[in-house]
Amino acid sequence: MHESIVYRPIGVVRSPIEEIEGAPIQPRAGKGIRATIELDREYEQGLRDLDGFSHIVLLYHFHLSKAFSLEVTPFLDDKPRGVFATRAPRRPNPIGLSVVRLVGIEGRVLHIEDVDMLDGTLVLDIKPYIRELEPSEEVRLGWLEGKSQGMDHVRADDRFK
Amino acid sequence: MHESIVYRPIGVVRSPIEEIEGAPIQPRAGKGIRATIELDREYEQGLRDLDGFSHIVLLYHFHLSKAFSLEVTPFLDDKPRGVFATRAPRRPNPIGLSVVRLVGIEGRVLHIEDVDMLDGTLVLDIKPYIRELEPSEEVRLGWLEGKSQGMDHVRADDRFK
Repeated sequence: MHESIVYRPIGVVRSPIEEIEGAPIQPRAGKGIRATIELDREYEQGLRDLDGFSHIVLLYHFHLSKAFSLEVTPFLDDKPRGVFATRAPRRPNPIGLSVVRLVGIEGRVLHIEDVDMLDGTLVLDIKPYIRELEPSEEVRLGWLEGKSQGMDHVRADDRFK
Repeated sequence: MHESIVYRPIGVVRSPIEEIEGAPIQPRAGKGIRATIELDREYEQGLRDLDGFSHIVLLYHFHLSKAFSLEVTPFLDDKPRGVFATRAPRRPNPIGLSVVRLVGIEGRVLHIEDVDMLDGTLVLDIKPYIRELEPSEEVRLGWLEGKSQGMDHVRADDRFK
Protein backbone atom coordinates (compact mmCIF):
# COMPACT_ATOMS: atom_id res chain seq x y z
CA MET A 1 0.00 0.00 0.00
CA HIS A 2 1.46 3.32 -1.07
CA GLU A 3 1.21 6.63 0.72
CA SER A 4 -1.38 9.06 -0.52
CA ILE A 5 -0.45 11.93 -2.80
CA VAL A 6 -2.13 15.30 -2.40
CA TYR A 7 -2.64 17.64 -5.33
CA ARG A 8 -4.34 21.01 -5.46
CA PRO A 9 -6.22 21.96 -8.65
CA ILE A 10 -4.67 24.90 -10.49
CA GLY A 11 -7.87 26.09 -12.15
CA VAL A 12 -11.32 25.22 -13.39
CA VAL A 13 -12.96 24.53 -16.76
CA ARG A 14 -15.90 26.69 -17.82
CA SER A 15 -17.67 24.69 -20.48
CA PRO A 16 -21.13 24.58 -22.08
CA ILE A 17 -21.28 20.85 -21.25
CA GLU A 18 -23.23 20.77 -18.02
CA GLU A 19 -24.34 17.17 -17.68
CA ILE A 20 -22.78 13.76 -18.16
CA GLU A 21 -25.72 12.52 -20.21
CA GLY A 22 -25.25 13.63 -23.79
CA ALA A 23 -21.66 14.80 -23.30
CA PRO A 24 -19.10 13.99 -25.99
CA ILE A 25 -17.12 10.95 -24.89
CA GLN A 26 -13.83 12.29 -26.26
CA PRO A 27 -12.53 15.60 -27.69
CA ARG A 28 -13.17 14.24 -31.21
CA ALA A 29 -16.89 14.28 -30.52
CA GLY A 30 -16.54 17.75 -29.02
CA LYS A 31 -15.23 19.23 -32.28
CA GLY A 32 -15.95 22.95 -32.32
CA ILE A 33 -17.12 23.12 -28.70
CA ARG A 34 -15.40 26.06 -27.01
CA ALA A 35 -14.60 26.44 -23.36
CA THR A 36 -12.24 28.33 -21.10
CA ILE A 37 -9.83 27.40 -18.36
CA GLU A 38 -9.67 29.90 -15.54
CA LEU A 39 -6.25 29.41 -14.04
CA ASP A 40 -5.76 30.51 -10.46
CA ARG A 41 -3.99 33.85 -10.27
CA GLU A 42 -0.94 32.46 -8.48
CA TYR A 43 -0.04 30.29 -11.51
CA GLU A 44 -0.46 32.85 -14.29
CA GLN A 45 3.29 33.31 -14.78
CA GLY A 46 3.55 29.60 -15.65
CA LEU A 47 1.60 30.24 -18.88
CA ARG A 48 4.42 32.22 -20.45
CA ASP A 49 5.34 30.94 -23.94
CA LEU A 50 2.43 28.49 -24.03
CA ASP A 51 0.63 30.58 -26.66
CA GLY A 52 3.09 29.39 -29.32
CA PHE A 53 1.62 25.89 -29.10
CA SER A 54 -1.52 25.07 -31.08
CA HIS A 55 -2.64 22.23 -28.79
CA ILE A 56 -2.36 21.44 -25.10
CA VAL A 57 -2.65 18.33 -22.98
CA LEU A 58 -5.01 18.75 -20.05
CA LEU A 59 -4.91 16.56 -16.98
CA TYR A 60 -7.95 17.00 -14.78
CA HIS A 61 -9.93 15.47 -11.97
CA PHE A 62 -13.20 13.75 -12.90
CA HIS A 63 -14.98 15.66 -10.16
CA LEU A 64 -18.23 13.69 -10.45
CA SER A 65 -16.55 10.28 -10.23
CA LYS A 66 -16.99 9.26 -6.61
CA ALA A 67 -16.09 5.56 -6.82
CA PHE A 68 -14.34 3.15 -9.14
CA SER A 69 -14.98 -0.20 -10.80
CA LEU A 70 -12.27 -2.59 -11.96
CA GLU A 71 -14.42 -3.59 -14.92
CA VAL A 72 -16.61 -1.23 -16.90
CA THR A 73 -18.63 -1.49 -20.10
CA PRO A 74 -17.32 1.31 -22.33
CA PHE A 75 -19.65 3.49 -24.43
CA LEU A 76 -18.18 1.98 -27.59
CA ASP A 77 -18.60 -1.65 -26.58
CA ASP A 78 -21.14 -4.00 -25.07
CA LYS A 79 -18.80 -6.15 -22.98
CA PRO A 80 -17.19 -5.36 -19.63
CA ARG A 81 -13.49 -4.50 -19.96
CA GLY A 82 -10.77 -3.95 -17.40
CA VAL A 83 -10.95 -0.26 -16.44
CA PHE A 84 -7.29 0.30 -17.39
CA ALA A 85 -8.15 -0.88 -20.92
CA THR A 86 -10.70 1.96 -21.17
CA ARG A 87 -10.88 5.73 -20.78
CA ALA A 88 -13.91 5.53 -18.46
CA PRO A 89 -13.96 7.99 -15.54
CA ARG A 90 -14.68 5.42 -12.80
CA ARG A 91 -10.97 4.77 -12.25
CA PRO A 92 -9.04 4.20 -8.99
CA ASN A 93 -7.50 7.66 -9.50
CA PRO A 94 -10.08 9.52 -11.60
CA ILE A 95 -7.67 11.56 -13.70
CA GLY A 96 -8.84 12.60 -17.15
CA LEU A 97 -6.61 13.36 -20.12
CA SER A 98 -7.66 15.38 -23.17
CA VAL A 99 -5.74 17.02 -25.98
CA VAL A 100 -7.54 20.24 -26.96
CA ARG A 101 -6.90 23.11 -29.33
CA LEU A 102 -5.51 26.27 -27.73
CA VAL A 103 -7.28 29.21 -29.37
CA GLY A 104 -5.68 31.94 -27.28
CA ILE A 105 -4.64 33.13 -23.84
CA GLU A 106 -5.84 36.32 -22.16
CA GLY A 107 -4.12 36.86 -18.82
CA ARG A 108 -4.92 33.76 -16.80
CA VAL A 109 -7.80 32.62 -19.03
CA LEU A 110 -7.14 30.00 -21.73
CA HIS A 111 -9.59 29.77 -24.60
CA ILE A 112 -9.80 26.21 -25.84
CA GLU A 113 -11.74 24.29 -28.49
CA ASP A 114 -12.67 20.64 -29.23
CA VAL A 115 -13.59 20.01 -25.65
CA ASP A 116 -15.21 17.06 -23.88
CA MET A 117 -14.89 18.29 -20.29
CA LEU A 118 -17.83 19.09 -18.07
CA ASP A 119 -18.32 22.56 -16.65
CA GLY A 120 -16.59 22.76 -13.27
CA THR A 121 -13.91 20.21 -14.10
CA LEU A 122 -10.85 20.79 -11.91
CA VAL A 123 -7.61 21.18 -13.83
CA LEU A 124 -4.49 19.50 -12.40
CA ASP A 125 -1.92 20.22 -15.07
CA ILE A 126 -1.41 21.80 -18.48
CA LYS A 127 1.34 20.55 -20.82
CA PRO A 128 2.26 21.49 -24.38
CA TYR A 129 1.10 18.89 -26.91
CA ILE A 130 4.12 17.51 -28.79
CA ARG A 131 3.32 15.15 -31.63
CA GLU A 132 6.91 13.88 -31.67
CA LEU A 133 6.20 12.19 -28.33
CA GLU A 134 3.62 9.86 -29.88
CA PRO A 135 4.73 6.41 -31.05
CA SER A 136 5.83 6.39 -34.66
CA GLU A 137 5.38 2.63 -35.11
CA GLU A 138 2.18 0.72 -35.76
CA VAL A 139 -0.38 0.83 -32.96
CA ARG A 140 -2.76 -1.99 -31.95
CA LEU A 141 -6.09 -1.02 -30.42
CA GLY A 142 -7.29 -4.19 -28.67
CA TRP A 143 -11.06 -4.34 -28.11
CA LEU A 144 -11.39 -0.87 -29.68
CA GLU A 145 -10.12 -2.05 -33.08
CA GLY A 146 -12.70 -1.14 -35.73
CA LYS A 147 -14.86 0.72 -33.20
CA SER A 148 -12.84 3.89 -32.68
CA GLN A 149 -14.77 5.85 -35.32
CA GLY A 150 -17.63 5.90 -32.81
CA MET A 151 -15.67 8.47 -30.80
CA ASP A 152 -16.68 11.05 -33.40
CA HIS A 153 -20.35 10.95 -32.59
CA VAL A 154 -21.23 8.67 -29.67
CA ARG A 155 -22.51 10.59 -26.66
CA ALA A 156 -22.37 9.60 -23.02
CA ASP A 157 -25.28 8.16 -21.05
CA ASP A 158 -25.49 8.02 -17.28
CA ARG A 159 -23.66 4.72 -16.73
CA PHE A 160 -20.68 6.33 -14.99
CA LYS A 161 -22.68 8.63 -12.75
CA MET B 1 -8.31 28.27 -3.77
CA HIS B 2 -9.54 24.79 -4.55
CA GLU B 3 -9.84 21.87 -2.16
CA SER B 4 -7.08 19.31 -2.25
CA ILE B 5 -7.48 16.04 -4.09
CA VAL B 6 -6.03 12.86 -2.67
CA TYR B 7 -4.86 10.01 -4.88
CA ARG B 8 -3.27 6.72 -3.96
CA PRO B 9 -0.69 5.22 -6.33
CA ILE B 10 -1.78 1.96 -7.92
CA GLY B 11 1.71 0.56 -8.47
CA VAL B 12 5.37 1.27 -8.93
CA VAL B 13 7.84 1.36 -11.84
CA ARG B 14 10.91 -0.89 -11.68
CA SER B 15 13.34 0.63 -14.14
CA PRO B 16 17.08 0.50 -14.80
CA ILE B 17 17.11 4.33 -14.69
CA GLU B 18 18.19 5.06 -11.14
CA GLU B 19 19.27 8.68 -11.22
CA ILE B 20 17.96 11.91 -12.69
CA GLU B 21 21.35 12.82 -14.13
CA GLY B 22 21.78 11.05 -17.43
CA ALA B 23 18.15 9.90 -17.65
CA PRO B 24 16.36 10.13 -21.00
CA ILE B 25 14.24 13.28 -21.04
CA GLN B 26 11.37 11.61 -22.91
CA PRO B 27 10.40 8.06 -23.99
CA ARG B 28 11.95 8.76 -27.42
CA ALA B 29 15.38 8.94 -25.82
CA GLY B 30 14.54 5.80 -23.83
CA LYS B 31 14.11 3.71 -26.97
CA GLY B 32 14.70 0.06 -26.15
CA ILE B 33 14.92 0.60 -22.37
CA ARG B 34 12.76 -2.02 -20.65
CA ALA B 35 11.04 -1.72 -17.33
CA THR B 36 8.14 -3.22 -15.42
CA ILE B 37 5.15 -1.83 -13.61
CA GLU B 38 4.22 -3.77 -10.50
CA LEU B 39 0.55 -3.09 -10.03
CA ASP B 40 -0.85 -3.52 -6.54
CA ARG B 41 -2.70 -6.81 -6.18
CA GLU B 42 -6.07 -5.17 -5.52
CA TYR B 43 -6.13 -3.62 -9.02
CA GLU B 44 -5.09 -6.66 -11.08
CA GLN B 45 -8.61 -7.28 -12.41
CA GLY B 46 -8.54 -3.81 -14.00
CA LEU B 47 -5.85 -5.00 -16.46
CA ARG B 48 -8.25 -7.34 -18.27
CA ASP B 49 -8.22 -6.73 -22.07
CA LEU B 50 -5.32 -4.28 -21.87
CA ASP B 51 -2.96 -6.79 -23.52
CA GLY B 52 -4.64 -6.17 -26.89
CA PHE B 53 -3.17 -2.66 -26.97
CA SER B 54 0.37 -2.15 -28.21
CA HIS B 55 0.95 1.10 -26.28
CA ILE B 56 -0.23 2.55 -23.00
CA VAL B 57 -0.41 6.02 -21.50
CA LEU B 58 1.12 6.22 -18.05
CA LEU B 59 0.30 8.94 -15.57
CA TYR B 60 2.67 9.00 -12.64
CA HIS B 61 3.92 11.06 -9.75
CA PHE B 62 7.35 12.67 -10.13
CA HIS B 63 8.33 11.35 -6.72
CA LEU B 64 11.60 13.31 -6.55
CA SER B 65 10.00 16.66 -7.39
CA LYS B 66 9.55 18.37 -4.05
CA ALA B 67 8.80 21.94 -5.16
CA PHE B 68 7.76 23.81 -8.26
CA SER B 69 8.88 26.79 -10.30
CA LEU B 70 6.62 28.87 -12.54
CA GLU B 71 9.47 29.36 -14.98
CA VAL B 72 12.04 26.73 -15.89
CA THR B 73 14.81 26.43 -18.45
CA PRO B 74 14.03 23.23 -20.37
CA PHE B 75 16.75 20.76 -21.36
CA LEU B 76 16.18 21.62 -25.02
CA ASP B 77 16.42 25.38 -24.63
CA ASP B 78 18.54 28.05 -23.00
CA LYS B 79 15.80 30.50 -22.02
CA PRO B 80 13.37 30.30 -19.11
CA ARG B 81 9.87 29.29 -20.19
CA GLY B 82 6.55 29.14 -18.35
CA VAL B 83 6.42 25.72 -16.70
CA PHE B 84 3.10 24.89 -18.42
CA ALA B 85 4.85 25.40 -21.78
CA THR B 86 7.32 22.64 -20.84
CA ARG B 87 7.30 19.02 -19.71
CA ALA B 88 9.65 19.72 -16.79
CA PRO B 89 8.91 17.85 -13.53
CA ARG B 90 8.97 20.91 -11.24
CA ARG B 91 5.23 21.54 -11.75
CA PRO B 92 2.57 22.68 -9.25
CA ASN B 93 1.13 19.14 -9.47
CA PRO B 94 4.11 16.99 -10.47
CA ILE B 95 2.25 14.53 -12.70
CA GLY B 96 4.24 12.90 -15.50
CA LEU B 97 2.81 11.54 -18.72
CA SER B 98 4.56 9.00 -20.97
CA VAL B 99 3.37 6.82 -23.81
CA VAL B 100 5.28 3.52 -23.71
CA ARG B 101 5.20 0.23 -25.56
CA LEU B 102 3.36 -2.59 -23.80
CA VAL B 103 5.41 -5.74 -24.35
CA GLY B 104 3.28 -8.08 -22.27
CA ILE B 105 1.37 -8.62 -19.05
CA GLU B 106 2.03 -11.40 -16.54
CA GLY B 107 -0.48 -11.36 -13.74
CA ARG B 108 -0.14 -7.93 -12.19
CA VAL B 109 3.22 -7.13 -13.79
CA LEU B 110 3.33 -5.09 -17.00
CA HIS B 111 6.43 -5.34 -19.15
CA ILE B 112 7.03 -2.07 -20.95
CA GLU B 113 9.62 -0.63 -23.32
CA ASP B 114 10.80 2.82 -24.46
CA VAL B 115 10.80 4.14 -20.95
CA ASP B 116 11.99 7.41 -19.41
CA MET B 117 10.75 6.88 -15.86
CA LEU B 118 13.02 6.56 -12.88
CA ASP B 119 13.05 3.43 -10.73
CA GLY B 120 10.53 3.84 -7.94
CA THR B 121 8.19 6.12 -9.88
CA LEU B 122 4.67 5.89 -8.47
CA VAL B 123 2.00 5.06 -11.04
CA LEU B 124 -1.32 6.89 -10.78
CA ASP B 125 -3.18 5.63 -13.83
CA ILE B 126 -2.84 3.43 -16.91
CA LYS B 127 -4.87 4.15 -20.04
CA PRO B 128 -4.89 2.53 -23.48
CA TYR B 129 -3.07 4.64 -26.07
CA ILE B 130 -5.47 5.56 -28.88
CA ARG B 131 -3.91 7.36 -31.83
CA GLU B 132 -7.34 8.53 -33.01
CA LEU B 133 -7.46 10.83 -29.97
CA GLU B 134 -4.52 12.88 -31.23
CA PRO B 135 -5.22 16.03 -33.26
CA SER B 136 -5.39 15.34 -36.99
CA GLU B 137 -4.74 18.96 -37.99
CA GLU B 138 -1.43 20.79 -38.16
CA VAL B 139 0.34 21.27 -34.84
CA ARG B 140 2.46 24.29 -33.81
CA LEU B 141 5.28 23.71 -31.33
CA GLY B 142 6.06 27.18 -29.98
CA TRP B 143 9.56 27.53 -28.51
CA LEU B 144 10.21 23.84 -29.26
CA GLU B 145 9.87 24.32 -33.03
CA GLY B 146 13.01 23.00 -34.72
CA LYS B 147 14.40 21.71 -31.42
CA SER B 148 12.25 18.64 -30.84
CA GLN B 149 14.75 16.28 -32.48
CA GLY B 150 16.86 16.77 -29.38
CA MET B 151 14.40 14.57 -27.48
CA ASP B 152 15.98 11.57 -29.19
CA HIS B 153 19.33 11.93 -27.55
CA VAL B 154 19.49 14.72 -24.96
CA ARG B 155 19.94 13.44 -21.42
CA ALA B 156 18.89 15.09 -18.18
CA ASP B 157 21.23 16.95 -15.87
CA ASP B 158 20.49 17.82 -12.24
CA ARG B 159 18.65 21.10 -12.80
CA PHE B 160 15.29 19.78 -11.58
CA LYS B 161 16.60 18.00 -8.53
